[in-house]
Amino acid sequence: MATEDFDTAPEPDGAGAPAPGTRRPGGRTARTRVSVLEAALAELVEHGYADTRIDRIADRAKVAATTVYRRWGTLENIVVDLADHLAVSITLGSGPTLEGDLRTVARAVVALYGNPAHRAWQCAMVSAAAASPKARRALSEVLAKRRESTAVAVTEAIARGEVPPGTDGHEVIRATVAPLYLRMYITAEPVGEAEADRAAAAAALAARAGLYVVGRAEDGTAR
Amino acid sequence: MATEDFDTAPEPDGAGAPAPGTRRPGGRTARTRVSVLEAALAELVEHGYADTRIDRIADRAKVAATTVYRRWGTLENIVVDLADHLAVSITLGSGPTLEGDLRTVARAVVALYGNPAHRAWQCAMVSAAAASPKARRALSEVLAKRRESTAVAVTEAIARGEVPPGTDGHEVIRATVAPLYLRMYITAEPVGEAEADRAAAAAALAARAGLYVVGRAEDGTAR
Repeated sequence: MATEDFDTAPEPDGAGAPAPGTRRPGGRTARTRVSVLEAALAELVEHGYADTRIDRIADRAKVAATTVYRRWGTLENIVVDLADHLAVSITLGSGPTLEGDLRTVARAVVALYGNPAHRAWQCAMVSAAAASPKARRALSEVLAKRRESTAVAVTEAIARGEVPPGTDGHEVIRATVAPLYLRMYITAEPVGEAEADRAAAAAALAARAGLYVVGRAEDGTAR
Repeated sequence: MATEDFDTAPEPDGAGAPAPGTRRPGGRTARTRVSVLEAALAELVEHGYADTRIDRIADRAKVAATTVYRRWGTLENIVVDLADHLAVSITLGSGPTLEGDLRTVARAVVALYGNPAHRAWQCAMVSAAAASPKARRALSEVLAKRRESTAVAVTEAIARGEVPPGTDGHEVIRATVAPLYLRMYITAEPVGEAEADRAAAAAALAARAGLYVVGRAEDGTAR
């Protein structure tokens, strides 16, 4: 079983990157940030990334548009900042099989997509990332961090002798989520538990066959 | 072996959607369209989707910006129109094994990503698709059309008895390209022939195990 913690509540005072000129962390500046990020999320859910406008975000947050422009500059920067604001954690229990653990991960990914706020943000983030290097680095970090907590399933499967030593946990998780991300963010095809379970089964099968025992070349591609 | 035909040459006169008010298909209007699309592609390669501006496209195409705005309205519409302009076909020979054919497909996908024009357009298209339903439908159609020509590998594998009858060709191709698309367009991680070959091997293994024998529920998800 997985617990999905999708937290859009304000962060503790002082969390997040300090804004230039901030004097009172956790004070007015921090509250403004939270208001703007919450407003941006609501606008993304309502209008989608292509039709979300900074002036409407400012209206909704009840701050001046110049405040938003001065702090973030672009909608892309707001979407990147939302990555820190939206805390997502997928907690794995210790399943008896790798396939079971991967199914938990895959179903959690599909469930997050069913959350309108998360779906709107992640679509915006994928859109921003495909268009600009800065957003790309931010999305890449978010996903790598998420993989850290789930790749442990592979470490445990190696310990049980279920998959060969040297199996790359991140690569197994990538294989599990890739067919889901393709449908969710690229081809916009329907995705449900059947797709989640199939992706998990395929990744577990390939892992057991030793396909994800990989070395790394200097350029980061697999050898 | 695959031949990749990446054709950015002007289409035959009259091809593409007729523009409102077009009187002479293949005449000035068609030539303007080609100039603008070629200019847009060059700007996308140079600046990326986030920093490509319609006025610079117009300058480069030597047409008035108002002409571009009147015909396309938004950069998104230009990127969608480029889908028709950029003809991509992956031709499969008839390999002796499904894995060999899938390897051909996967390597062709990686090779296309190595083409700066195709890469710039596809990044823009993924970005547009994640942000707006219109671009999403266009990208979905482009990829479905590409799968039509490669899914035949699965039909042949069924005929050879290599994979179970009822194996869904599109699903096998999706499984093959998904880990590559994840790296190319979402996480921006390095991708090369090793990743291509691994994706092909994993998809072929799962296909042989019968994982892609799928029925369709009414909502389009797998049963």
